[in-house]
Amino acid sequence: MLVSSIIKAYRLNLSSSSTFANITKRVYNTQNYTRYLNMSLTQKKFNPLKQLVAEKPFKIAVIGSGNWGTTIAKVVTENAKQYDKLFYPIVQMWVFEEEIEGEKLTEIINTRHENVKYLPGIRLPSHLVANPDLLDTVKDADILVFNIPHQFLSRIVSQLKGHVPPTVRAISCLKGFELGDKGVQLLSSFITDELNIQCGALSGANIAMEVAKKKWSETTVAYQMPEDFRGKGKDVDHQVLKALFHRPYFHVSVIDDVAGISIAGALKNVVALGCGFVEGLGWGNNAAAAIQRVGLGEIIKFGQMFFPESSVETYYKESAGVADLITTCSGGRNVKVGKMMAKTGKTALECENELLNGQSAQGIITSKEVHDWLVTCNKVEDYPLFEAVYQIVFNNVSMDKIPEMIEELDSLGSAVDKDSDSEDSS
Amino acid sequence: MLVSSIIKAYRLNLSSSSTFANITKRVYNTQNYTRYLNMSLTQKKFNPLKQLVAEKPFKIAVIGSGNWGTTIAKVVTENAKQYDKLFYPIVQMWVFEEEIEGEKLTEIINTRHENVKYLPGIRLPSHLVANPDLLDTVKDADILVFNIPHQFLSRIVSQLKGHVPPTVRAISCLKGFELGDKGVQLLSSFITDELNIQCGALSGANIAMEVAKKKWSETTVAYQMPEDFRGKGKDVDHQVLKALFHRPYFHVSVIDDVAGISIAGALKNVVALGCGFVEGLGWGNNAAAAIQRVGLGEIIKFGQMFFPESSVETYYKESAGVADLITTCSGGRNVKVGKMMAKTGKTALECENELLNGQSAQGIITSKEVHDWLVTCNKVEDYPLFEAVYQIVFNNVSMDKIPEMIEELDSLGSAVDKDSDSEDSS
Repeated sequence: MLVSSIIKAYRLNLSSSSTFANITKRVYNTQNYTRYLNMSLTQKKFNPLKQLVAEKPFKIAVIGSGNWGTTIAKVVTENAKQYDKLFYPIVQMWVFEEEIEGEKLTEIINTRHENVKYLPGIRLPSHLVANPDLLDTVKDADILVFNIPHQFLSRIVSQLKGHVPPTVRAISCLKGFELGDKGVQLLSSFITDELNIQCGALSGANIAMEVAKKKWSETTVAYQMPEDFRGKGKDVDHQVLKALFHRPYFHVSVIDDVAGISIAGALKNVVALGCGFVEGLGWGNNAAAAIQRVGLGEIIKFGQMFFPESSVETYYKESAGVADLITTCSGGRNVKVGKMMAKTGKTALECENELLNGQSAQGIITSKEVHDWLVTCNKVEDYPLFEAVYQIVFNNVSMDKIPEMIEELDSLGSAVDKDSDSEDSS
Repeated sequence: MLVSSIIKAYRLNLSSSSTFANITKRVYNTQNYTRYLNMSLTQKKFNPLKQLVAEKPFKIAVIGSGNWGTTIAKVVTENAKQYDKLFYPIVQMWVFEEEIEGEKLTEIINTRHENVKYLPGIRLPSHLVANPDLLDTVKDADILVFNIPHQFLSRIVSQLKGHVPPTVRAISCLKGFELGDKGVQLLSSFITDELNIQCGALSGANIAMEVAKKKWSETTVAYQMPEDFRGKGKDVDHQVLKALFHRPYFHVSVIDDVAGISIAGALKNVVALGCGFVEGLGWGNNAAAAIQRVGLGEIIKFGQMFFPESSVETYYKESAGVADLITTCSGGRNVKVGKMMAKTGKTALECENELLNGQSAQGIITSKEVHDWLVTCNKVEDYPLFEAVYQIVFNNVSMDKIPEMIEELDSLGSAVDKDSDSEDSS
């Protein structure tokens, strides 16, 4: 067999490097792995990021102060302090001002160092400054980190117009894209188009409160180097972004593929609705895993079809891909709404109202946008799971049909044949 | 931007096929999707598998009658009845004979059509015959389906030696491979080598009881066509295997990549132990997703390194890949053992004994085999998660170190720097 011959060849190869193998064997086969590990961790502690120097330290402004916004502001402020030759230590965070028991939220944050409304119980660094004035927040900033609810983006961006020089760089922590008459538009591209600044994205398997509590998490930052890059020490590059977001408890991978992580971040919510359906129907773990598998496949296909420059690897290798899909499908708003729909027969909007207290399950609107876009492209049939979710949510199609709706027909034929099945089981 | 120009090009392209798009729009934009869906399902009901005819219908024998063995025997027996021109309707199932309250298990199965010990509450087809005699079970069989615990394989195969003609074909439902002095050996290759018969594999996100209860599930069958293939209607091919295993509630994808699905099926258990650790430590969903992401990456790397003919797609597209990983990591024995280790500080073997009532958590032994093999190859450092699990289980290394142990060092540098972290948070 081919397989065994490869193994044999491999083993022959090994014997020639046996001295090398023996050395390693000594390290691993004895109880001194801990010593080895400590050595290795010491090596890791040599941190090249600490060597980074900016001619004029980059000033950071975070736009948004909700649950995730405040968490990311905390992360970058910790790094602004650690990499003091690279970043200006004080980070500005724009806060939509509101009153909490007669006190202004910005004042609470700046005196008590806690966002009592959106991230209660988490101590914030003292050099993170809450600012109620949007234009004052971004004044002189070199790096903007957008982290506001999707629906406010357009208003915020129009307020910023004319107040942000084109040398500024940005990262969008908003998940997803916009689908409409203009086709598939990444939110980062929207920011780029409107403000004429280069904008990347951050996305990953990131439940905000877990990151805020320094529970180990991973994320993906994607940024395409702009044509007008001004050079190392003068401009933002991948290493600067790693220094900005990476923490011992928040591991960052920096890649180019902005489209890939944005697509995965939006479409996972549609898949999560599907997971909610099969969970609510009591179909079990096999079915939930099947939905995620089919969903990952459709996410990849969508990326390949509409952003052919995005990489398949992004979807199965990055935190923003498969890991975020898994986290989202193991809980969260969309799963809850899907589950309740299955159990009660209520509509998606009814469930959203009852469960989410004014918040939205993003998968509902995304499934509609995806459907409309695929109809425009005449590609609906390539995405049977996305379409099934849409039809269940908007046209009241029965969930029981999911397996047939999403069955992949291959050249071998199908056994979707309920009649003969009922014979068999009688 | 590149991205927006692609979208523009895509939209231009669309307008030329607008008539086509309009037709589809009519179908999808109105409430008549249900009619469309029924039409489409009717088309699916034209089942090419029903056209299959064998010159002499294939006789099937299932070897094994545990939880999963009985479930798979039920599946293939249902299909033997449905495809009566392709399969001999009576399926033999070898049962390791035991007495249940004074009655023989084979007699119970053959009279009451229920495996009361291993699959209680599930009615079995009447033409599934339990047989306590191994050689009588396989007599005249054309297709053998192996579904016994891993540790019995070697004994069963040695009993079969000399009693199975080389024209027989086999599928192994055992998950995994053997790692030892002979290197990585697939269980299907072991069967092929010992019995001189072609052998494929079946693996997927398949909790047995869910399949037995006809809850919708998916699986992957892998089979390499043998050089001595005797022709359609005379020998087993992918279409015959689809007819053998595919049910309306059990969707089968048939591929070539035996190595890929076997590797994924074995290594997922090591990843599941890792998930158990971070769950037991209370690290949350982000951490569990990170372990699965890193685990999937190491599974793919292992496949590529030792079975370069296996396909990366198998791991992220097939039920036996990412879906089985997700199901296994959302529960099951290995997660339970890892969790208890984290919570109590007890050893893996102590937890196994307390939790599993004599059954084994396969990840424990697999992590040892993988470690030993990687030491032999001098490749330990390429698999930090597998190694971390091994060291935690066998060398009592602290679980807290997992994030550092598995951090991927890229050219950008690392921020594994606990000291500065504690400063920041003070």
